[in-house]
Amino acid sequence: MAVLVVGSIALDTLTTPSGKVEETLGGSATYFSLAARAFDTVRIVGVVGPDFPVTEKRFLEEKGIDLGGLTTGQGPTFRWEGVYGPDLGDARTIRTELGVFAGFAPKLPDHFRTTSCVFLANIDPELQLQVLDQVVEPRWVAVDTMNLWIDRRREKVLEVFSRVDMVFVNASEATQLSGEDNLIRAGAYIQKLGQRYVIIKRGASGVMVLGGQQPFVLPAVPLEEVVDPTGAGDAFAGGMLGYLSSVEDPLDFERVKVGLACGSVTASFAVSGFGVAILRDLSRDSIDKRMRFFLSTNQLGLGQA
Amino acid sequence: MAVLVVGSIALDTLTTPSGKVEETLGGSATYFSLAARAFDTVRIVGVVGPDFPVTEKRFLEEKGIDLGGLTTGQGPTFRWEGVYGPDLGDARTIRTELGVFAGFAPKLPDHFRTTSCVFLANIDPELQLQVLDQVVEPRWVAVDTMNLWIDRRREKVLEVFSRVDMVFVNASEATQLSGEDNLIRAGAYIQKLGQRYVIIKRGASGVMVLGGQQPFVLPAVPLEEVVDPTGAGDAFAGGMLGYLSSVEDPLDFERVKVGLACGSVTASFAVSGFGVAILRDLSRDSIDKRMRFFLSTNQLGLGQA
Repeated sequence: MAVLVVGSIALDTLTTPSGKVEETLGGSATYFSLAARAFDTVRIVGVVGPDFPVTEKRFLEEKGIDLGGLTTGQGPTFRWEGVYGPDLGDARTIRTELGVFAGFAPKLPDHFRTTSCVFLANIDPELQLQVLDQVVEPRWVAVDTMNLWIDRRREKVLEVFSRVDMVFVNASEATQLSGEDNLIRAGAYIQKLGQRYVIIKRGASGVMVLGGQQPFVLPAVPLEEVVDPTGAGDAFAGGMLGYLSSVEDPLDFERVKVGLACGSVTASFAVSGFGVAILRDLSRDSIDKRMRFFLSTNQLGLGQA
Repeated sequence: MAVLVVGSIALDTLTTPSGKVEETLGGSATYFSLAARAFDTVRIVGVVGPDFPVTEKRFLEEKGIDLGGLTTGQGPTFRWEGVYGPDLGDARTIRTELGVFAGFAPKLPDHFRTTSCVFLANIDPELQLQVLDQVVEPRWVAVDTMNLWIDRRREKVLEVFSRVDMVFVNASEATQLSGEDNLIRAGAYIQKLGQRYVIIKRGASGVMVLGGQQPFVLPAVPLEEVVDPTGAGDAFAGGMLGYLSSVEDPLDFERVKVGLACGSVTASFAVSGFGVAILRDLSRDSIDKRMRFFLSTNQLGLGQA
């Protein structure tokens, strides 16, 4: 099987209490792919400029990521600069230069159109709908969004949500969408739009999934140090969907619960270094080892790692 | 076995988004006792005024709580008034009338001095030390505190912590004490003071215990509605210590982990009604039923409730 991601490939400049890195490989599709590839084949649809480092393109290819949907547009690669405060909460955006991303019109190569699992990262919901029109049934689709689109294109966001199987939102987006502070009620509001599962990301407080007989909640992996939260949500989705696309019956609730754990672990690697530093060489062995540690920190009766 | 609590017995006036109640039974020792009594015998040390309702005193006795350490002082019963905002975070205190609590000098009846498990609720650390001087070894002691005492009596708080087995703090208190935003590092700072376990309460984000081979974290019980967060921490400690005082080898890490789950469940009952309303008639059956639900919301492979 394989998983397809449509999202940004970027060069990020990041400042956190641990330091600063400039023009480092980033973007939602990048974080997602590097997390998912430990579990399954990954296909990227995205756009970069001619200034995108050849070495990074080669690096992604060497990691087995299918760049058949990556086009090179005319203009600079998407750049983002953000600064995190001591609490490592939401970043303050210093600069966003869309570059080639401003004219991004996702086009799926023929052999991508039948991918069984599709992840629409937090791009403009109009583009997400364009992708939905290009994929061939049967397939299942997960989608992410962000406060910007809920603010500016609420109706389109809701339309996308009604056409997919799984929605990723963070807690503040769930509240923004639903008007509900309580996350179960906020999630129930989103679920009524028609998709099967709603995944509510709560940062250091973990993650909740609605869509089973009752809510299911996992804490985050306990970490003594978070270096850089950038891409945590995409690395989470990558680990979760990479796992699910690799198993039989991926939308079974028991599978989804295990997927949450996979996502929590890959996200914990992502935030332990700047940008994608830790994800670059992340092996399935390292994931499995941290998974055993993770489960020993929140599962009763599983004993020591 | 039995568990002894030293803390406040109060009449609370509470306003939350769900409504308002006036002069309702409250106080840390009350919440603790009503949560713990489902698991084990409870002994209270505290003080009320002659205005304390006879019906409430009789109610506590009828619930099997030993009031042998409850004295009636000269003056009004401790009263507190608090208002919660829509996020149900920290209450804004409108009024605190210490009354008889201002002159509280905890004195343990002889048959209380040998209680094997002692909980020092968030009273002045000077009073906590007075209790420690009255209890007879062997016993084990858990302690709670609050921002006020960390602010004003930091050295005394640290002295108490160094003399007990288990410390309960909430996340902001852990940060206030340690200067660390990261909860694992904050907890490690507190652990160095000498006690065996540090329990960090994170409200709707659940609870973490440090002191085992690795941190252990449980989410909160997922609730569609929180009516009144008052007393959640004391109901948590009551459920946890009530369970632990009733088992062999209570300070074994595996026991402590189960204790966290018991505390999470009793706290979830406490916040589902105003004041102690739900705790008044809480049965062990109801706790066991919600425990099965709770574990099905965060334990992998346990199936449906």
